[in-house]
Amino acid sequence: MIRKRATIADVAARAGVSAQTVSNVVRGTGNMREETRRRVEQTIQELDYRPNRSAQTLRSGVTKMLGVAIPYFDQPFCPMFVEYVARFSRERGYGLVISLYGRDIDSAVNEARRINADGWIILSDVSLEGNDEAFSQDFPIVLAGDCLGAGTVDAVMMPNVEASAYATQWLFDHGCERVGMIGASPRLFDESGQFIPGELDRVMHAVERNVDMRFRGYAQAVARNTMPLDASIALPAAAITRQEGERQAELLIERGGLPDGLFCANDAIALGVLSALNRHGIRVPDDVQVIGFDNTIDAHYMSPALTSIDPDSQEYARWAVEMLIARIEGNDEPPVVKTTAFSLVERESTR
Amino acid sequence: MIRKRATIADVAARAGVSAQTVSNVVRGTGNMREETRRRVEQTIQELDYRPNRSAQTLRSGVTKMLGVAIPYFDQPFCPMFVEYVARFSRERGYGLVISLYGRDIDSAVNEARRINADGWIILSDVSLEGNDEAFSQDFPIVLAGDCLGAGTVDAVMMPNVEASAYATQWLFDHGCERVGMIGASPRLFDESGQFIPGELDRVMHAVERNVDMRFRGYAQAVARNTMPLDASIALPAAAITRQEGERQAELLIERGGLPDGLFCANDAIALGVLSALNRHGIRVPDDVQVIGFDNTIDAHYMSPALTSIDPDSQEYARWAVEMLIARIEGNDEPPVVKTTAFSLVERESTR
Repeated sequence: MIRKRATIADVAARAGVSAQTVSNVVRGTGNMREETRRRVEQTIQELDYRPNRSAQTLRSGVTKMLGVAIPYFDQPFCPMFVEYVARFSRERGYGLVISLYGRDIDSAVNEARRINADGWIILSDVSLEGNDEAFSQDFPIVLAGDCLGAGTVDAVMMPNVEASAYATQWLFDHGCERVGMIGASPRLFDESGQFIPGELDRVMHAVERNVDMRFRGYAQAVARNTMPLDASIALPAAAITRQEGERQAELLIERGGLPDGLFCANDAIALGVLSALNRHGIRVPDDVQVIGFDNTIDAHYMSPALTSIDPDSQEYARWAVEMLIARIEGNDEPPVVKTTAFSLVERESTR
Repeated sequence: MIRKRATIADVAARAGVSAQTVSNVVRGTGNMREETRRRVEQTIQELDYRPNRSAQTLRSGVTKMLGVAIPYFDQPFCPMFVEYVARFSRERGYGLVISLYGRDIDSAVNEARRINADGWIILSDVSLEGNDEAFSQDFPIVLAGDCLGAGTVDAVMMPNVEASAYATQWLFDHGCERVGMIGASPRLFDESGQFIPGELDRVMHAVERNVDMRFRGYAQAVARNTMPLDASIALPAAAITRQEGERQAELLIERGGLPDGLFCANDAIALGVLSALNRHGIRVPDDVQVIGFDNTIDAHYMSPALTSIDPDSQEYARWAVEMLIARIEGNDEPPVVKTTAFSLVERESTR
């Protein structure tokens, strides 16, 4: 049996849109409602529509290539960020290569040198202090991940301090008497789990590294509510992962004295925390209210669904792409740092 | 204040391992327990240890490069697969580039042509029938994603039919009287939601496309239990995503007549289904037992945690890497298809 191959007109008719809209979806260009984009994508899959090959080849022959280097993929933020970067690159007519560099920023730059892209976005959540020479490459670099490239390259930042202070204050304003945090930097703590005063002082002035800035915002709000900073309810995370969130929440539960509010350094941590609380029959939000950070897609699918700071990751990715393309196209102004706006998306993990 | 930079010996001492083990973790080589690897990685981050730069550069100068092309990143399987591919590539001394090709396999091949890797793993969940010429490139290709390259390239497969029949039978054996499925191919259904007999017949002989093979396994087990195939409890998914799982479960709940067992085409679908069931106060596993497929990390973090078929994704990725490297190094035997083994990981969504 020979199946007739679906045409762009078939897709357009079934999805109830114009052929131009279908073409825009295929090429990742144009402005349309998210709902329309998804309906067209689903129709493309239902009809197994394949765009004309030579048109695609022609298009790909003329595009340039961006690169994005990511430390890991197994936590929810990175895949979301890469999806956005891919979409905005395509919208601007650029291809994209992705590199998974592991723990080491130097290897990110080395990998970048070997892959022939016109410029790179490097996502890093570890400090790049003293690493200036890594950024003196013959291709432009934009930093994402809330670290500064010692003023030598463009960077995008999230409003980490403000948003974390807001989330913590929000918990106090919504009935919490003791608000804890999970996901502080391990460097803040000595071996008995107490704060190291010098490190605490350093973090209270942090202007980069998201874990440090998020702790800083948390600590500011705690101080405003005349609650002492308490290392028994503000816990470190060796990595900002679901696994660590779960492990630290287990420790907190074992130890007793659970706070009635928990601000988590990111959604990954919060997902692990919710999992541990659920397993121990601790009710969220009745016994403990929980807020995450990143507003990843997983926040919606948790049970209870997770209230989370939305740092506008889409704008974050869009700016990184725009800044990089501007450099590739010749912008030689001094490096700039752009910071997104935030909002709190209330779901079921808070009252 | 000048902080002394951490050395490999500092990391080894604190993590309680040898310097060689630390080196193996940094370079992604060597065999060790997962727990050891994680402890070393956490210590590296705690101490902010950065491996010696020139050693890294030297290493990267001599490695070759694999490519992996992925259709999307916003569902849980793909990031996990890429993490495994990256680890096994590194273990074999190869670098890795990742390409996000969107919906169209031809664009995957076009992207691959432009990025100078020594060979490509292409993950595709849409059929590649009639697309043979796409695979006649001057670099080797290995297909992942349970589609066959018309016998022209190596492929890795999951045991889709057997594992899906097993999961469905397991539900019947554990108290379910009616087992439904979410995530069948939309092509099976006419506009009133009834099965199209010709399409049903085609799928009952499917040897590629994971959604088709998983439906085939489900239907086999249903037939063995003398239950008629019922289109009111076997629902399509336009895409195998959390969003579609949620949407289809909402339809099923609205319509009434919820089955007491649900086999989901993958974990993404199952996560959406659990979210919808939770929201409607339908108890899992008391009212409905749910099984997913892929055993992604998210399965563990759901509430209730998701019982899922583990198709050994790690082996799946390892084989793809090994087969590709063998081709790069000169293997010119006829193409082969390798299929992984499976197990069922029981968690809280089943009784």
